[in-house]
Amino acid sequence: MALINSQFLKVINDEIQSKIDKKVNQFRAINRDVKLIKLDSGDVIRPLAPCVMQAMTSAIVEMGDEKTFKGRTPTEGYPFLIDAIVRFNFKRYKVKIDPDEVFINNGTKENIAGLGDILCKDNRIAVIDPVSQDYVESNVVGNRAGEMNENNQWSHIIYLDCKKKNDFMPEFPKLRPDVIYLSFPNNPTGCSMPREALEKWVKYAIDNDVLILFDATYKSFVSDPAIPQTIYEIKGAKKVAIEFRSFSKNAGFTGLHCGYIIIPKEISGYSLRIDKSVSLNTLWRKRQAIKNNAPSYIIQRGAEALFSAEGLDWVQENINYYMTNAQVLRQSLADARLKFWGGVNSPYIWIESPYGSSWKLFDKLLEECHILSSPGERFGAHGKGFVRLSSFANETKVIMAAIRIAEMRI
Amino acid sequence: MALINSQFLKVINDEIQSKIDKKVNQFRAINRDVKLIKLDSGDVIRPLAPCVMQAMTSAIVEMGDEKTFKGRTPTEGYPFLIDAIVRFNFKRYKVKIDPDEVFINNGTKENIAGLGDILCKDNRIAVIDPVSQDYVESNVVGNRAGEMNENNQWSHIIYLDCKKKNDFMPEFPKLRPDVIYLSFPNNPTGCSMPREALEKWVKYAIDNDVLILFDATYKSFVSDPAIPQTIYEIKGAKKVAIEFRSFSKNAGFTGLHCGYIIIPKEISGYSLRIDKSVSLNTLWRKRQAIKNNAPSYIIQRGAEALFSAEGLDWVQENINYYMTNAQVLRQSLADARLKFWGGVNSPYIWIESPYGSSWKLFDKLLEECHILSSPGERFGAHGKGFVRLSSFANETKVIMAAIRIAEMRI
Repeated sequence: MALINSQFLKVINDEIQSKIDKKVNQFRAINRDVKLIKLDSGDVIRPLAPCVMQAMTSAIVEMGDEKTFKGRTPTEGYPFLIDAIVRFNFKRYKVKIDPDEVFINNGTKENIAGLGDILCKDNRIAVIDPVSQDYVESNVVGNRAGEMNENNQWSHIIYLDCKKKNDFMPEFPKLRPDVIYLSFPNNPTGCSMPREALEKWVKYAIDNDVLILFDATYKSFVSDPAIPQTIYEIKGAKKVAIEFRSFSKNAGFTGLHCGYIIIPKEISGYSLRIDKSVSLNTLWRKRQAIKNNAPSYIIQRGAEALFSAEGLDWVQENINYYMTNAQVLRQSLADARLKFWGGVNSPYIWIESPYGSSWKLFDKLLEECHILSSPGERFGAHGKGFVRLSSFANETKVIMAAIRIAEMRI
Repeated sequence: MALINSQFLKVINDEIQSKIDKKVNQFRAINRDVKLIKLDSGDVIRPLAPCVMQAMTSAIVEMGDEKTFKGRTPTEGYPFLIDAIVRFNFKRYKVKIDPDEVFINNGTKENIAGLGDILCKDNRIAVIDPVSQDYVESNVVGNRAGEMNENNQWSHIIYLDCKKKNDFMPEFPKLRPDVIYLSFPNNPTGCSMPREALEKWVKYAIDNDVLILFDATYKSFVSDPAIPQTIYEIKGAKKVAIEFRSFSKNAGFTGLHCGYIIIPKEISGYSLRIDKSVSLNTLWRKRQAIKNNAPSYIIQRGAEALFSAEGLDWVQENINYYMTNAQVLRQSLADARLKFWGGVNSPYIWIESPYGSSWKLFDKLLEECHILSSPGERFGAHGKGFVRLSSFANETKVIMAAIRIAEMRI
């Protein structure tokens, strides 16, 4: 019998999700007529921009004619989209990124998991906590996590605790990691890392020869000029940082799957086999050629349209829509005298449970407000005692939710 | 410095492709006005079906309205496409496949490479030779291949030699492998495995507890009733075989990236960690959740349209178009008194070089006929001495190519 990668067994049961499902099913069984307001999801609800639809429809027409038909997608993506990204997302901020440092792909999930393929299992990984468990799970199946302890933390992973007293900013680890995942604006805390703090992290990475994997999925939600638009605004970052980006959240692309990864040519990894350093850009190119396709021509044309005047406006409207939701929720939480973070420069709001237990606040939101939230445990051990609300929801529903929250008796 | 997966270094230089590029560049430098006819590619050229375009355009309209907008794609794919696949590609052949045994994904490349993620590195892999090197490369980076020897074969891989005297059908290996990749109709030899031979392989797999990974990418090109439409027509196959399928070649989807994998619930792998067998269907579901997204709603609606009456006709027309090309090429090869296989039930033709060396036939086709072909070395050690021609080309160009081949002096 073929032997399996047993690391998968470590993540096959999601106990927290099962607990959530059980609570929701119980609630629904008793309250059949109640419609829950889902504020638990990172998935977006706003439709595609008309210019995106137009561009994709035109691309389909091209694909219907032998003369303009496109077969296989270039591994690294189409130059038209790469050029637009370089111009609008980097050159505009005086950051020099070469086109061959950009790889278009199917979004952040693929970036996170895919990077594990080019790194060997012996790297020591650091993640902030709380954080999206995607970083952790991809390292568990890549055999870099060790075993889970009684605190639901993995023995080989270094956790950078993000605590209330530090506004959920991580401190430098005592033990040097090889790779650090940073994600700001952060999911779930909604906190962003100001320029000065990020400068310190880049310096730390340079001084300690650490690779930073910077997840900037939510960077479009940042309006504060004190927060960099890309990690490459920080001097030296091109030597140590890989940045992930996505069109998912700002442009309604969660179902279209289009994102990209920046791998500067300066960044190397070390090969124990040849006792030399090797360009990660070169390795990633090979990895993509073997394991993944870039998104279809149709979707890349859609993404390109986001950089037109109409596209940029639409993205801004999307952001405004979700950030208005966040503002409405923040006001209601303040009215309820709850303590919270985020919802500014980020679509997520992180609420401290006044009861200590996040499950107790989760239950109260479910039973009294008919709101589905995310218990902090979903995001790691330091998520305990908190609940995440998402502003990716219809504005009318958000207002209904806010009214109920404001009237909640803690 | 982060440590890299050094296995990637083993596949980073493609010497054969470099040699091809060098020859082509030299030819072009001397013959600037000559237009080469590309018969070297597995990429298709026929446009999308009108019904596919229509379905995708409608899906875009849905995505442009908040009421019908679709966010994240279900991990395993949309039920509408899964149901169509089950009905048309299996039930029609009296094969019972349950919807939860079908996983829609971005095509065969992802299937091949992805399966490596759920299998541990200690499996002994067998591949037929010659064959697409995708199977080999994904196992090299997964650390299952060992080192390359002087014959360009990998030390830990078991090669099932496909020789002329056996019509390029593999024989059972002397050493028992854990996993066998079979791909029929085969790329590059163009040969198909008749029912009886496939029955023997399924029996071998059952008797020896071997996992068969069956790549049926080219199955739509099969018109001979002696060749099964799916490996699951063979009794017992659901216990031992995973089948890959794709819309790439028959429906012009190479750039849209939509395929699927069938993982029967009966199939298990063994976990050394828990000393028990585990469902590969369950493992794959988790792997997809962590590492890949199913294709977008738009593309899945496009694929669904292939199962309409109009879609089925269009696919048949595509197949007829390419198989007519194959027939034209076969005739010209016969006229030139070359010995060849394939081009029947398969878009590929496998030509024996009358000079012994495949490079010599490659050069002759390039210089005298202005045809770009694939030297057999691209497909493994046993590809030596052969050249592959592809019928994925425009019919007019194929006719021009055929005229030149027929006039070639060997």
